[in-house]
Amino acid sequence: MSALKAELLAIGSELLGPLRAETNSLWLTERLLDAGIEVTARVTLADDAVLLESAFRAALARADVVIATGGLGPTADDLTREAAAGATARGLRRDGAIVEALRARFARYRRPMSETNLKQADVIEGAEALPNPRGTAPGQLLEHEGRTLVLLPGPPGEMKPMFDEHVLARLRARAGASRVVRRRVLRIAGMPEAGVDELAAPVYSRFENPKTTILGAPGQVELHLVAHADGEAEAETRIEELATVLRDALPGRIFSEDGRELPQVVTDLLRERSLTLALAESCTGGLLSARLTEVPGVSAVLDRAVVTYANRAKVEALGVDAALLERHGAVSEEVASAMAAGIMKAARSEIGVAITGIAGPDGGTSDKPVGLVFVAICGAAGTRVRRNHFPGGRGLVRQQATQIALEMLRRGLLGLAPL
Amino acid sequence: MSALKAELLAIGSELLGPLRAETNSLWLTERLLDAGIEVTARVTLADDAVLLESAFRAALARADVVIATGGLGPTADDLTREAAAGATARGLRRDGAIVEALRARFARYRRPMSETNLKQADVIEGAEALPNPRGTAPGQLLEHEGRTLVLLPGPPGEMKPMFDEHVLARLRARAGASRVVRRRVLRIAGMPEAGVDELAAPVYSRFENPKTTILGAPGQVELHLVAHADGEAEAETRIEELATVLRDALPGRIFSEDGRELPQVVTDLLRERSLTLALAESCTGGLLSARLTEVPGVSAVLDRAVVTYANRAKVEALGVDAALLERHGAVSEEVASAMAAGIMKAARSEIGVAITGIAGPDGGTSDKPVGLVFVAICGAAGTRVRRNHFPGGRGLVRQQATQIALEMLRRGLLGLAPL
Repeated sequence: MSALKAELLAIGSELLGPLRAETNSLWLTERLLDAGIEVTARVTLADDAVLLESAFRAALARADVVIATGGLGPTADDLTREAAAGATARGLRRDGAIVEALRARFARYRRPMSETNLKQADVIEGAEALPNPRGTAPGQLLEHEGRTLVLLPGPPGEMKPMFDEHVLARLRARAGASRVVRRRVLRIAGMPEAGVDELAAPVYSRFENPKTTILGAPGQVELHLVAHADGEAEAETRIEELATVLRDALPGRIFSEDGRELPQVVTDLLRERSLTLALAESCTGGLLSARLTEVPGVSAVLDRAVVTYANRAKVEALGVDAALLERHGAVSEEVASAMAAGIMKAARSEIGVAITGIAGPDGGTSDKPVGLVFVAICGAAGTRVRRNHFPGGRGLVRQQATQIALEMLRRGLLGLAPL
Repeated sequence: MSALKAELLAIGSELLGPLRAETNSLWLTERLLDAGIEVTARVTLADDAVLLESAFRAALARADVVIATGGLGPTADDLTREAAAGATARGLRRDGAIVEALRARFARYRRPMSETNLKQADVIEGAEALPNPRGTAPGQLLEHEGRTLVLLPGPPGEMKPMFDEHVLARLRARAGASRVVRRRVLRIAGMPEAGVDELAAPVYSRFENPKTTILGAPGQVELHLVAHADGEAEAETRIEELATVLRDALPGRIFSEDGRELPQVVTDLLRERSLTLALAESCTGGLLSARLTEVPGVSAVLDRAVVTYANRAKVEALGVDAALLERHGAVSEEVASAMAAGIMKAARSEIGVAITGIAGPDGGTSDKPVGLVFVAICGAAGTRVRRNHFPGGRGLVRQQATQIALEMLRRGLLGLAPL
């Protein structure tokens, strides 16, 4: 049996500007591959009724599965419903239950609902409406002349859960369960991509299946392992066999194999050990705290964070000695240490973390260039400071600094470094 | 005259994997916009003969200009020439000059040339071959029934110079040499997309040129205006004419027309007025501070930020009365006010901002549901608190809370609200 073929339509003139790439399609491609469905075309389309109807018709003529994202909102530009109905020569009916749900949603948030919002209750004849608890536009799923047509909202936060909850299982069933694809992502922080590849390539290049792709992000490297097999057990065995030798090649460096990002890994370690944390940030300006507090339940371990840009704030809020600042400057090993000890003392937490550096674009000198960042971790075993010089602009420097701080914490919590 | 429309086809199965986005199309979109040509569809296609011919046919039926990249190489997977010939019902002729050039190139690099390489000398009847000094596959340009069809090699290093040297001038001439496109983005915070559209649509829908697209993001709505004109001055006049009436329709609500995001706008206003700011964040966990400190030079106006998750931290670091916390709970108008006043006093800044709420997924009650967020701004004119109930998950609630705080600040700084 050859794999089912899917085409993806991303709808919205704003997606065709030179400024932003469309991301829903990449995510859907990965999900579909996992279900054994191959994507043969990805199309990004402007909000134009004639264009959209023609694109739906062409995709339905070629592919087994057609998934459109976007264009389901309430404005005059939102034409996906009408275009899909036209391409399948079906009418639209206004769904009373969706109208009620829309009214209730607006009432709940005490917002007036305009009549144009009712457009979102229009469902293609024969299609099933897919609930959208995270937004106003429901999705739609239609079986039409042997094709499966799916309309999903454009915002990723609404599209992704709707796909996972209401679409994926149905497509899986259609694709047949026999041939399976399994993926695992091994994540590493605090090492450059070339450094990881030097250790990992001699290992993973011996394997044809799973196939490994290396992917670099700021302060992080990912190894994507993809195995094909006739059953789940075989796929899992193949993945685990390669993961085992990769762990040996990168001892203690892989922080996650289960999808967790570094803030989640560190939060979980702190919770398991019942330890509390306090943060003092200068050049990262709250980014470390913001990344950690993305994790639900972090409140059990994060006592507080202080962002001290001004020297005066470092003295007042963290008790850093003014003479120390005068002698070594705010971006120094000594001040990083004092900040970490200061926040730990103020919060009476078990661990204190401090970051001070020069994120740029200005403020660098030949002694202390842009990208110079000190990270200090203070715990029962005393204070450890790491001096870093990160490449890249302001955003990259800040992101890398938070990654290093989290990785130092992780290694300390696992006993791979003193804490 | 309305603008020429272009569709872009990126050809190659390797472009449809989940890991990499296709980049040629973004580059071409920008080049075409500058030449006054609007891209209405971008398509990424697998190497499949039937699919490709159908895609060429559909694009040629809709667009004035069709540009394909990739699939011009010598292998069996390279099907672009054949598909384009099929879609235009034309034959392929083997071009003697290209055959000679190929032979010479292989001889120069002392590589044996296989017969399959001769495929690259096949040119569509009536098309012009575009030389490719940087690779083996020449491009092709065909005028067909009022459409311009262009085939370019996939490697960006070959595609880009070929486009600039052999295609751009011709497309410019076709578009009208002086035809220009200008864009402007009007940004609004603190209003839902449907609310903005209800006020804006009656205005912008009266204009055919500029064309307006509305785009919703968490806590933000954007109106993208695109004008076509015969010269820069006319384009600018058209844009400004529409922007003027949109400003009247959305009085005081447009925070930026020059590309700046809200954190930059607020930082600029604070700098102009020589005012300093201090932040106290609970549920946003440093996200407001992190967003503001993305702006270079914010250190001149941001004194400090404190993230107080625990009640004890609110008492110790912000001087919030423990009895107030006991009586009203941490998520309350009263505690938001006390946090804003507390951080202003601690930092001796002119303005204090506080956010306290329930970001979820847990911690909500019927009285205080997930998404309930109080934002307080404290200044010379006293303290203002806004109660919000945001839809969406943890990430969305946090993002919207920071947007509302920044928008309240902006309105206060502009004298549109007390501060």
